[in-house]
Amino acid sequence: MYSYKNDYSEGAHPRILNALMETNLEQTDGYGDDVFTQKTIELLKNKIDSPNSDIHFFSGGTQTNLIVISAFLRPHEAAIAAETGHILVHEAGAIEATGHKIISIEVDDGKLNSEHIASALSAHTDEHMVKPKLVYISNPTEVGTIYTKNELEQLSTLCRDNNLYLFIDGARLGSALCSTENDLALPDLAKLSDAFYIGGTKNGALLGEALVINNESLQEDFRFHMKQKGALLAKGRILSLQFLELFKDDLYFQLATHANKMADRIKDAIRSLGYEFLVHSPTNQIFPILPNHVIEKLEEKNQFYIWSEVDKDNSSIRVVTSWATEEDAVTAFIEDLRAFTKDNR
Amino acid sequence: MYSYKNDYSEGAHPRILNALMETNLEQTDGYGDDVFTQKTIELLKNKIDSPNSDIHFFSGGTQTNLIVISAFLRPHEAAIAAETGHILVHEAGAIEATGHKIISIEVDDGKLNSEHIASALSAHTDEHMVKPKLVYISNPTEVGTIYTKNELEQLSTLCRDNNLYLFIDGARLGSALCSTENDLALPDLAKLSDAFYIGGTKNGALLGEALVINNESLQEDFRFHMKQKGALLAKGRILSLQFLELFKDDLYFQLATHANKMADRIKDAIRSLGYEFLVHSPTNQIFPILPNHVIEKLEEKNQFYIWSEVDKDNSSIRVVTSWATEEDAVTAFIEDLRAFTKDNR
Amino acid sequence: MYSYKNDYSEGAHPRILNALMETNLEQTDGYGDDVFTQKTIELLKNKIDSPNSDIHFFSGGTQTNLIVISAFLRPHEAAIAAETGHILVHEAGAIEATGHKIISIEVDDGKLNSEHIASALSAHTDEHMVKPKLVYISNPTEVGTIYTKNELEQLSTLCRDNNLYLFIDGARLGSALCSTENDLALPDLAKLSDAFYIGGTKNGALLGEALVINNESLQEDFRFHMKQKGALLAKGRILSLQFLELFKDDLYFQLATHANKMADRIKDAIRSLGYEFLVHSPTNQIFPILPNHVIEKLEEKNQFYIWSEVDKDNSSIRVVTSWATEEDAVTAFIEDLRAFTKDNR
Amino acid sequence: MYSYKNDYSEGAHPRILNALMETNLEQTDGYGDDVFTQKTIELLKNKIDSPNSDIHFFSGGTQTNLIVISAFLRPHEAAIAAETGHILVHEAGAIEATGHKIISIEVDDGKLNSEHIASALSAHTDEHMVKPKLVYISNPTEVGTIYTKNELEQLSTLCRDNNLYLFIDGARLGSALCSTENDLALPDLAKLSDAFYIGGTKNGALLGEALVINNESLQEDFRFHMKQKGALLAKGRILSLQFLELFKDDLYFQLATHANKMADRIKDAIRSLGYEFLVHSPTNQIFPILPNHVIEKLEEKNQFYIWSEVDKDNSSIRVVTSWATEEDAVTAFIEDLRAFTKDNR
Repeated sequence: MYSYKNDYSEGAHPRILNALMETNLEQTDGYGDDVFTQKTIELLKNKIDSPNSDIHFFSGGTQTNLIVISAFLRPHEAAIAAETGHILVHEAGAIEATGHKIISIEVDDGKLNSEHIASALSAHTDEHMVKPKLVYISNPTEVGTIYTKNELEQLSTLCRDNNLYLFIDGARLGSALCSTENDLALPDLAKLSDAFYIGGTKNGALLGEALVINNESLQEDFRFHMKQKGALLAKGRILSLQFLELFKDDLYFQLATHANKMADRIKDAIRSLGYEFLVHSPTNQIFPILPNHVIEKLEEKNQFYIWSEVDKDNSSIRVVTSWATEEDAVTAFIEDLRAFTKDNR
Repeated sequence: MYSYKNDYSEGAHPRILNALMETNLEQTDGYGDDVFTQKTIELLKNKIDSPNSDIHFFSGGTQTNLIVISAFLRPHEAAIAAETGHILVHEAGAIEATGHKIISIEVDDGKLNSEHIASALSAHTDEHMVKPKLVYISNPTEVGTIYTKNELEQLSTLCRDNNLYLFIDGARLGSALCSTENDLALPDLAKLSDAFYIGGTKNGALLGEALVINNESLQEDFRFHMKQKGALLAKGRILSLQFLELFKDDLYFQLATHANKMADRIKDAIRSLGYEFLVHSPTNQIFPILPNHVIEKLEEKNQFYIWSEVDKDNSSIRVVTSWATEEDAVTAFIEDLRAFTKDNR
Repeated sequence: MYSYKNDYSEGAHPRILNALMETNLEQTDGYGDDVFTQKTIELLKNKIDSPNSDIHFFSGGTQTNLIVISAFLRPHEAAIAAETGHILVHEAGAIEATGHKIISIEVDDGKLNSEHIASALSAHTDEHMVKPKLVYISNPTEVGTIYTKNELEQLSTLCRDNNLYLFIDGARLGSALCSTENDLALPDLAKLSDAFYIGGTKNGALLGEALVINNESLQEDFRFHMKQKGALLAKGRILSLQFLELFKDDLYFQLATHANKMADRIKDAIRSLGYEFLVHSPTNQIFPILPNHVIEKLEEKNQFYIWSEVDKDNSSIRVVTSWATEEDAVTAFIEDLRAFTKDNR
Repeated sequence: MYSYKNDYSEGAHPRILNALMETNLEQTDGYGDDVFTQKTIELLKNKIDSPNSDIHFFSGGTQTNLIVISAFLRPHEAAIAAETGHILVHEAGAIEATGHKIISIEVDDGKLNSEHIASALSAHTDEHMVKPKLVYISNPTEVGTIYTKNELEQLSTLCRDNNLYLFIDGARLGSALCSTENDLALPDLAKLSDAFYIGGTKNGALLGEALVINNESLQEDFRFHMKQKGALLAKGRILSLQFLELFKDDLYFQLATHANKMADRIKDAIRSLGYEFLVHSPTNQIFPILPNHVIEKLEEKNQFYIWSEVDKDNSSIRVVTSWATEEDAVTAFIEDLRAFTKDNR
């Protein structure tokens, strides 16, 4: 059995475990007040070319999202998100649990655009409704699509013109930035958003997300919110050390590039066999539409999620590759798919 | 410089890092639905002799406390804690942020007794006040003291008679259970409390606390609360694997015993030099009262917290030992203290 | 200028003010622990034929909704509502502010049916999502439609079969129950729902809503929640006294019947002039579609809300009648409308 | 039986009911967007001599307190209050339910001073603790004492120097301002506090508190918070109309003066009989210490709360007078007390 269910099926990239090993017995202060964390923050500020940004480390994406949103918003303010947004669907009401409504926007491809935001703004007119204040987007989105630089610039301008914060969930940011279709770089995100996070858990870390707060008015007292929500780790260094390893050279991007390449190989094969996709995804999550009997055969040696029923004979599946996905496994998957398809004709 | 500031100054016990290494590339399901986690849960249920308990893994103590309390209580219900309780003082209002008041009880030695609880109950009489519903204690307490079996039984009986939940914060539980003055064992905790947690972070884990819910009526849907508060790690196995290593033999207790022994050596030396302690602590945190000039000299080679001013010439300090505290460092500390004391006479 | 903007444009029915006057200087206990409140509760239990129900009085609908939902649900549980539901749109995020997500259901006519609920249930499968637990409906709905007895029975059965609470917002309940198309009575609501409220503010009271909790497991400690959310009035009697007056004979139903009759007269006139309605409403809110120039002329002497643009020449407006709507005003409105329509042809 | 249990035992001053009667059938806009509310706001701004203050009307004190504090504070910020503060003891955890800890200060007489605040500030040093941000005081306090102008100026200066908000709970403000020992006036409160409220419910209104927000940075979007917490009444005018009546001449102060005089008469009589008081109260709540058998006799014709046991033979009781307390009842109470005392000697 080989799993394409997720990009967090394995542990961490070995270099990360080594980094933890090598520094293991050094004594440091707790809660992120340590030299490793300070060093990592400086390194990342440099990478994003944004010396006045603040950087904090978290254990996971839901935790990051809920703390960012509850720290940034006053009680009557709401977030705007695509209906597919992780905070709307897959965080067990984490944002609402901090008191904030999320305004859901119907979308085709997981992406918000300026018209969506403008329409949400015009629908919220007075104190009988919540006040939209933060735009939440994911890059890549939950269906694998990515934002172009131009799209992000437009969103950013609209947000600034309307006093909205723009927050980018980067759980799989590596995959977006290493996509063959991408034209964004880390410094663009720092310039165009109020805050964004660089996902580690889904790109080779044991656990860890690096939050970057660019809007200086949102930086004050941020660690209080982290502590209050249980996010300040006593051994804070174990999060920063992983990012130090991922970013001290290009490891972070190499890992994401590998994941994307594995997805691309599978995607090309599927396309060449004449199958369609639910959505055009240039990242490490793909959603091919396959005949149900082909899916059943693939499931004998592979694990993946059935995403949706397309018609009575066909379904879409979600195939996720990762930094750890093995070339040979991909080759076998493709060969199987070819064979099952041929049998079928 | 040698640090006695905390028991989380180093990384993890090497065996724990090895356990992560060895299993690193195995593919598993996410969010704790993996074989390692299941295996660890079975092991721990066995150790606590409580097959119907539920076990969940967390990243840290504040996170555990806030999720337990918010999951267990209805909105109008409150927790009762000693004024020194971690949830009252050092969690940045984490419990209140979930909507619950904590009733603070004045205490001498960090410990709650039945009279404290009875008095809190009798002061809360109607719907103009919160309704006390959960008793929070720490073992060891925040000042290093421990509960005897008899004391815990009395508390437990009182709680059951009054429909109160008893929750034990075990951030340093190892140190309590391995104290020379302890008469409690893990199965006692399972029998006497509604829930308790076994602290990993402060006893050799990279991070991790194992929550045990004994009261079956409190087990339903508990993972929803974990997800909602950002506590379900995608790679959930990295928490359980550490507990597997700590409990597959006696490692957990060996580490705590080492920490206690180091504290006892320092304590004996301090006592033999004629100094007093702020409180009688039989665990790995001690609070000696020393002349300020002696403290200043000790600080030249050692780090610790100044705890409180006792009088104009003397202060109490907090010395914390850990699984990683080196024998030689302790020897040097004691020799220095003797020398500084002698100089002084 | 005559206003059809709302059914709360005037003060209270004169009998209600008289009732306050007559009892004004009697001394009573505070916070609803008074004889008037006890008497009113007994009277209402009798009217709804549900001796084991609990009854509480509130200042307004949003307050009632937020306290009911936050008292009934655990943190991970969610409400289900039609997209037009008051709690989803016009309560400034009041429910989310207590920590609960509302699952929004697309509907045609403001009403939820069993298929809607079943579909919401099947979409919420595990702890990564909220857990649906309460179904919120309004009768009449926010667009003036009403539930039949059969429809309510089906919803009730589905809810009970799936461990969901059914809560009915009765802000304008009088108008529903007095509609010519209604086949429900107060005792039906008590039998079929876990809780519902009888709206006073929009049917002749100065302020006040009477909440009825039928599910006994939801009754415990309810006053704590009211106090905690600021809903227990020191002079609690001023709420119950109004319901005593409204229900000691048929005043409540007479007032609602008057409101409905005034709406029916306007509706009949509009229909006879050949205009359509946005939705079929048999209650005191109607939504006729009129030519924009007719609307403009009507606005010279009347106030009402423009509801939506239907096409470039026509819009829907919302006309609300009340217990206080004057016959002569309605006659004048109808005559004007006829005249403006004729001019137009 | 005559009740001294509270100052909200009766309905409203007759002039208030008349004001509601006279305006009853006028149509106005809802939710406080009406001409009466605008007129009352202008009148009150004039009375407090603070044209830039914002004024909002509420149904009760707990509601006012919880909305003010949750609107003003960010999630990690806390209020400071005397241990006797209404928000700490008698609001069923209303403040904590909005997510905020209240730091409790031990006091002698219900009053906070600058040293209390300074001490609370110095105890809260970093992000492991909440951040004190708002000082809550009541004038009069919950034990009937009042602040002098000098005391309030000192508190105000300290708060401004430390970026703390000063909020004054004025549930019984009339009684404080009309006390023979008072030297504060409404304009002083507007100058010295960030916000305060003028209590109506306990001084002759049916219900109603008028909140005054002086700090302009705290005024933005305030009505959103009111709506979200269920405090915006559909018929908002019924709150403002009462304040219009109370303040269009000196009615508010006449009523409070009457209440104080009744308390003073009782106090003088008690003192002349040689009894002591638990605390020196110059307002309408007094706490005499009486022999238990005298208390028992008084209870035959009067209602009041037993406040605390002083020793085995004596207890303190709470006697509250109001705008409605009858002279004859007070005379009878005093005569009875004299008789019971004489019997006793």
